[in-house]
Amino acid sequence: MILRVDRLQVELPAPTDPDPAAAAHVQELLGGRFGEMSTLMNYTYQSFNFRGREKAKPFYDLIANIATEEYGHIELVSAVINGLLTGASEGEDVTDSPLKGVKDQAGIRHHWINSGFGALPVNSLGQGWNGEYVFNSGDLVLDLLHNFFLENGARMAKIRVYETTDHPIARRMLGYLFVRGGVHALAYAKALEELTGVDVKKMLPIPNIPDADFKEAREFTDQGMHGKLYRFSETDFEGIRQVWTGTHPLDGTPLEVIDGLPPTAAPTPADLPEEPAVSSPGLHPGEIAEVVQRLVSRM
Amino acid sequence: MILRVDRLQVELPAPTDPDPAAAAHVQELLGGRFGEMSTLMNYTYQSFNFRGREKAKPFYDLIANIATEEYGHIELVSAVINGLLTGASEGEDVTDSPLKGVKDQAGIRHHWINSGFGALPVNSLGQGWNGEYVFNSGDLVLDLLHNFFLENGARMAKIRVYETTDHPIARRMLGYLFVRGGVHALAYAKALEELTGVDVKKMLPIPNIPDADFKEAREFTDQGMHGKLYRFSETDFEGIRQVWTGTHPLDGTPLEVIDGLPPTAAPTPADLPEEPAVSSPGLHPGEIAEVVQRLVSRM
Amino acid sequence: MILRVDRLQVELPAPTDPDPAAAAHVQELLGGRFGEMSTLMNYTYQSFNFRGREKAKPFYDLIANIATEEYGHIELVSAVINGLLTGASEGEDVTDSPLKGVKDQAGIRHHWINSGFGALPVNSLGQGWNGEYVFNSGDLVLDLLHNFFLENGARMAKIRVYETTDHPIARRMLGYLFVRGGVHALAYAKALEELTGVDVKKMLPIPNIPDADFKEAREFTDQGMHGKLYRFSETDFEGIRQVWTGTHPLDGTPLEVIDGLPPTAAPTPADLPEEPAVSSPGLHPGEIAEVVQRLVSRM
Amino acid sequence: MILRVDRLQVELPAPTDPDPAAAAHVQELLGGRFGEMSTLMNYTYQSFNFRGREKAKPFYDLIANIATEEYGHIELVSAVINGLLTGASEGEDVTDSPLKGVKDQAGIRHHWINSGFGALPVNSLGQGWNGEYVFNSGDLVLDLLHNFFLENGARMAKIRVYETTDHPIARRMLGYLFVRGGVHALAYAKALEELTGVDVKKMLPIPNIPDADFKEAREFTDQGMHGKLYRFSETDFEGIRQVWTGTHPLDGTPLEVIDGLPPTAAPTPADLPEEPAVSSPGLHPGEIAEVVQRLVSRM
Amino acid sequence: MILRVDRLQVELPAPTDPDPAAAAHVQELLGGRFGEMSTLMNYTYQSFNFRGREKAKPFYDLIANIATEEYGHIELVSAVINGLLTGASEGEDVTDSPLKGVKDQAGIRHHWINSGFGALPVNSLGQGWNGEYVFNSGDLVLDLLHNFFLENGARMAKIRVYETTDHPIARRMLGYLFVRGGVHALAYAKALEELTGVDVKKMLPIPNIPDADFKEAREFTDQGMHGKLYRFSETDFEGIRQVWTGTHPLDGTPLEVIDGLPPTAAPTPADLPEEPAVSSPGLHPGEIAEVVQRLVSRM
Amino acid sequence: MILRVDRLQVELPAPTDPDPAAAAHVQELLGGRFGEMSTLMNYTYQSFNFRGREKAKPFYDLIANIATEEYGHIELVSAVINGLLTGASEGEDVTDSPLKGVKDQAGIRHHWINSGFGALPVNSLGQGWNGEYVFNSGDLVLDLLHNFFLENGARMAKIRVYETTDHPIARRMLGYLFVRGGVHALAYAKALEELTGVDVKKMLPIPNIPDADFKEAREFTDQGMHGKLYRFSETDFEGIRQVWTGTHPLDGTPLEVIDGLPPTAAPTPADLPEEPAVSSPGLHPGEIAEVVQRLVSRM
Repeated sequence: MILRVDRLQVELPAPTDPDPAAAAHVQELLGGRFGEMSTLMNYTYQSFNFRGREKAKPFYDLIANIATEEYGHIELVSAVINGLLTGASEGEDVTDSPLKGVKDQAGIRHHWINSGFGALPVNSLGQGWNGEYVFNSGDLVLDLLHNFFLENGARMAKIRVYETTDHPIARRMLGYLFVRGGVHALAYAKALEELTGVDVKKMLPIPNIPDADFKEAREFTDQGMHGKLYRFSETDFEGIRQVWTGTHPLDGTPLEVIDGLPPTAAPTPADLPEEPAVSSPGLHPGEIAEVVQRLVSRM
Repeated sequence: MILRVDRLQVELPAPTDPDPAAAAHVQELLGGRFGEMSTLMNYTYQSFNFRGREKAKPFYDLIANIATEEYGHIELVSAVINGLLTGASEGEDVTDSPLKGVKDQAGIRHHWINSGFGALPVNSLGQGWNGEYVFNSGDLVLDLLHNFFLENGARMAKIRVYETTDHPIARRMLGYLFVRGGVHALAYAKALEELTGVDVKKMLPIPNIPDADFKEAREFTDQGMHGKLYRFSETDFEGIRQVWTGTHPLDGTPLEVIDGLPPTAAPTPADLPEEPAVSSPGLHPGEIAEVVQRLVSRM
Repeated sequence: MILRVDRLQVELPAPTDPDPAAAAHVQELLGGRFGEMSTLMNYTYQSFNFRGREKAKPFYDLIANIATEEYGHIELVSAVINGLLTGASEGEDVTDSPLKGVKDQAGIRHHWINSGFGALPVNSLGQGWNGEYVFNSGDLVLDLLHNFFLENGARMAKIRVYETTDHPIARRMLGYLFVRGGVHALAYAKALEELTGVDVKKMLPIPNIPDADFKEAREFTDQGMHGKLYRFSETDFEGIRQVWTGTHPLDGTPLEVIDGLPPTAAPTPADLPEEPAVSSPGLHPGEIAEVVQRLVSRM
Repeated sequence: MILRVDRLQVELPAPTDPDPAAAAHVQELLGGRFGEMSTLMNYTYQSFNFRGREKAKPFYDLIANIATEEYGHIELVSAVINGLLTGASEGEDVTDSPLKGVKDQAGIRHHWINSGFGALPVNSLGQGWNGEYVFNSGDLVLDLLHNFFLENGARMAKIRVYETTDHPIARRMLGYLFVRGGVHALAYAKALEELTGVDVKKMLPIPNIPDADFKEAREFTDQGMHGKLYRFSETDFEGIRQVWTGTHPLDGTPLEVIDGLPPTAAPTPADLPEEPAVSSPGLHPGEIAEVVQRLVSRM
Repeated sequence: MILRVDRLQVELPAPTDPDPAAAAHVQELLGGRFGEMSTLMNYTYQSFNFRGREKAKPFYDLIANIATEEYGHIELVSAVINGLLTGASEGEDVTDSPLKGVKDQAGIRHHWINSGFGALPVNSLGQGWNGEYVFNSGDLVLDLLHNFFLENGARMAKIRVYETTDHPIARRMLGYLFVRGGVHALAYAKALEELTGVDVKKMLPIPNIPDADFKEAREFTDQGMHGKLYRFSETDFEGIRQVWTGTHPLDGTPLEVIDGLPPTAAPTPADLPEEPAVSSPGLHPGEIAEVVQRLVSRM
Repeated sequence: MILRVDRLQVELPAPTDPDPAAAAHVQELLGGRFGEMSTLMNYTYQSFNFRGREKAKPFYDLIANIATEEYGHIELVSAVINGLLTGASEGEDVTDSPLKGVKDQAGIRHHWINSGFGALPVNSLGQGWNGEYVFNSGDLVLDLLHNFFLENGARMAKIRVYETTDHPIARRMLGYLFVRGGVHALAYAKALEELTGVDVKKMLPIPNIPDADFKEAREFTDQGMHGKLYRFSETDFEGIRQVWTGTHPLDGTPLEVIDGLPPTAAPTPADLPEEPAVSSPGLHPGEIAEVVQRLVSRM
């Protein structure tokens, strides 16, 4: 089970300069084969199906705990997509043509026909994330090797999307996720090393450019976040301490387990702007507010 | 963000009588269009994308909180599938034919070729859950109508799977989920009623048979669980109290919000048996245990 | 079985101002999850599979008859797409580059690579309509609830496409289909009400804006078409009269069953222009005409 | 537009001996790439998109008219699947296990989990029919060549399914469709011959075995049905007479156009048995009958 | 088995004028239903599965040999896509935005997010080539009819792509493949004629325009390449001589079997430019060169 | 380009004991995500798209050469599937029910409805191999890491299929491919080691059981085949010698490059039995033989 905390892993800039084409690119990081839906679901199912977990507890705990952090990543990337789409209509009158401007743009048509300028679990082409992206052979070494590869594939996709846009909302998320993804890649490398004796972590980073070279990541590496594994549980997964020890191979930062949420956590965007042109949350949001008023007053 | 608690929503019987065909049927409840992946992801994305949520807080809180409970449902259904597949091999020697017995059975071949007798985010035919199953127009009334329909569609699938098997592991989960799904259907009905004035809840149950007629559900209705909405957050989503009020339309049970996890919560199956025939968690689990021993002793 | 009448449900303006991007958007209304292929096929299969239909005849007749009208909708939307694509090439010489102009436009490449500037049963991203979109549990209440939701989802998609373009061909169809879709939503609401006692129709319209607010729909509401259910059969489906009674909830228009085709019916576009650049119906249409001449003279 | 006539193209035997595995095979003839959904939709879209149709009227009429007959084929094949699934449950009590018997059988699980023992637009593996199966280049010769190939591919699939089962419901349909499919293949061959001068019809039948060798087809060839093209329209598509002339290449039967429905037409199965185990049309069909009683008495 | 020769079937111009939209169109010719992956895999599997091949050797040899040539076609089309994408970035610094320019262009986002400006086995919409495109009934006549249709469908797609772009790299390939595809269509027509007596080749070309009317094809028809079938084997497939005899129906060119590779063969583009912006073959290609230096010196 | 040699990489036993369920399992090794279509196409496209290949020649040559060997693997696995399906019908009369026996078996229905008891590029569930399985980021290290993971995933699938059947045709292929797949995994490990300094090969084998423990593999390891890389080219790819040096990490066998085909090569099954029940290569193969006779005599 999970408990939800209504906070984002890192605060995002307020929406400006709508950019449906950038939103389309960022979707790859959400619903693409190497997107956050994939990291979330791969590790989640690997934890659900982990056999003999008592004997192998540190590894079970590691996979389960990273899975938990990944939930915050689909949330963060979704918030970015919402931010990039906010304001893309012109006017609010649905009996007019407030979406005429997006018709000829590069973007994903489902963002406005099907969703209300919101994120969807699809890739940059609008193709749905697919459960077949989950790899879980049951064999711990093979699954960890998969995860190590997956994290590196995910990093490459992030770099490529980074290169397509310098939109501040996208860049904020990318800077943060370069660092957190780096932690996960290192964690799996260390787990593999324990099990096979191979110094897998020496392969990192792929491609060969440190996270700190991306200026938006530096704020987080400066805080030492690349050495911290957050324990996303109040009661469980203590075993991660047994894997996440030693120092970071790039700069010697001590590897630490931190109990609880990252310090960067910030409220989710409670004020995500209404978009009446796409009827979100309704054509006349005031009506919903009135209903709520009634509900509240009844208590 | 989420915090994970390493517990199942309800304890399951220990694995006996492996039944790959039953496991195949239960997959529909996990990765089918009306499976728990769909309820989880529909509500999760609806919460991520909720615009103007401040004004509409009780509805945002309701969707976000139910989404959070659904995570426990994919976990529970996955545990059932693991249980149904446990023991389906004959022998442990991979250089022999320990999977010969499953070759000619009705089942999903990927359960043993690709996974280690574990759950996959696929439906009863082995087709991957697809992100296109997520509906999120942004319009609150339409999204709630969708959710109400989805819950009822999910109930129908559960009834049909119930009819195919009386395996105790499957039935335990089904009894529990009939009741919890019923709560969600009612919650969305009430939300719709507040917004539109239509007494949607009068349509329930669909089909017209109360949960309590399923004997495995009765234990939970007897506890009044059909009137309880658990708040899966320590800090947020208080607004659900504004919707979840009054009494249950079937039997007058008062509707209550309970802070925290359901009392049925039980440890996840830490002793999910190893299956060396599918190399899960390895051909020689003892080797992993030795590595862990070394890790632990190093601390 | 069916008999075909070579007429469109409503006359469309002649092609002008080709707009492949608008055509791409309109495809969602044809082959998307909430497009006319979905309404057609859902109701068609529900009618094929209807068990115990004798006892439940008015409901069987209703679903079967609406299914029949939907055929005219895929025909109409296809005609719109043809109209929007007509003239999108520049020149007729296939050994030159008459399609160069469309190469860099937002559009669906299959419209010119695979089809001859014609409609395809695909959505706005070019993904094929899928048989899995058909929901038919067999349970009448659940199926009607689905249909009610489907009609409302379809309406939302139409509104969104409306907002992207004011092209007269698209708008003509949209005005017409707002009204006809509204009739179907109301019909399913009434059927549900009869079966469950819930006043579902009070939920309409979703979102909360009457069809008549769309200026292209007003011509049809002014004719009272929103109160008329056409019986698309000369011999069957009389039972629809038992459901389609009373008055329209919005304006009190009496609900009437009309035998036969809508009065707006018009010839299909016999003069849909040739497009030699995409070899439709051939590079040299004159050659086909000669063959036809020979065929005719032979009679 | 179409008018629907509530009749099947040929009467089917009453349901006996449920056979979910046979139903699974027959699905290929409905929703497979070479199933009736494909013939229906290919010709339907080719008729919708036909450019310059005035000049090429006999060909337009031919494609449109055959498309119309194909609707009756999806209806007929669906009725067969319903017949093969009828009675596959054991008992009616959904709180017991009336579907236990089908759990271990070869069949398509969606037939009972998702549908109420009804046909679905999917193939023999349960994969949805896909709009990408529609081929419509716009070029008349190429489209006719496609159609000729499609009819022959469809014939092969029918022969293969024929070989898997001698169930009388399936065989009745197969006998009928061998003959009608043969008419369509010949019609497209003749059209191609007119346009290209190639005697395509000499290639038939593929594989080289006449329809009449299948005993269930003989009843229909004995009636000369292999020489008759029915005009499924009261008002249109007269041009088919210009193509469908001469004699049948196999046995010299004169080719005739018959106005209206085939003489084999029979009522659709109004008494398709209720299946309460799958809640079709409800758990308690009597309740629906009562509602209907009320509706009728109100008139 | 195969032996690979590191040469392209025809030399391509060096990359200039990157055009991601043209690359997207050309993808249809690689991974679309009528692309070279389809011709390659259809004939390859037909050859693998050919039963009774001894008796039918000329036909087996024909299919197997054409399959072999098709490999060179996926190679050639891929080289074109690489050429069209080369140079599409602006700058090499991945910590800057060298892909900003492609963000708003019509193109396939996976070309830069997932691949390194390289070809993918997907169609013009980025949808993966699918094994279900392979048709192989086992019946030789039906399979040949399919192949004949496939070649003509492929020709149509090539013509349409030709019309969208006059980029010299694309046009060079198109000119060449018009001619080679024409040979394959004719070869299947001749095989069908032998088996059925129908003069299928008279149907060619479809649409009715000779290859030589495309100026880029003329160089190859001038060399008589439309009459030559290359035997892509040093040891096998001699039986093709028995089918490929006589003269070309269009211009009487004698049909010849040539042993070995076409004379147009040219080295594969060994100097396909590095693209550091997409890390291909690495961010710092010099590092790889150093490794290679070490490897070489060690020999 | 390629030249084809009509030989299999290893001789297979003659068909006996048809086993459609085993054939279904083996399909995973052909068209599954980790099947031979995936290894073939991943390496093939990586070679097509390799940028800056001159500088990185040994790596280009390695990938291109292994790709070439993989073609022989899809051929071999296809031959196994053909062998397992041979004889699965009962009788030859298509107007009777010679396929009745397979109707109720676990298997892939498309093997007899669509193909003529032949292999298809689909996985064990009958889902088509998909071009999206190709990974080719362009970054050499990441692509090699992918390939290393892919080979290990493929090995796991082979082990699992091995465990389901001891059919001699399947086992022969498996024994051979364990060894050849092991060579490829090692080759990619060595390449990665050269580029990153990480001793990746120490991770092998995954799972931790040597190939030689599978008795059918021992014949090939006894011949030292696990140390041999065949150069599948007469003219190119010499650079593989620079990577494939040293000794095998498991047993010290010297690593050798062998020019040309493996010594195990054997003729393809020219006598793959006819199957008239599925019309392969025709209902009356004698007719084809007569045509061939005519063709031959004409020469």
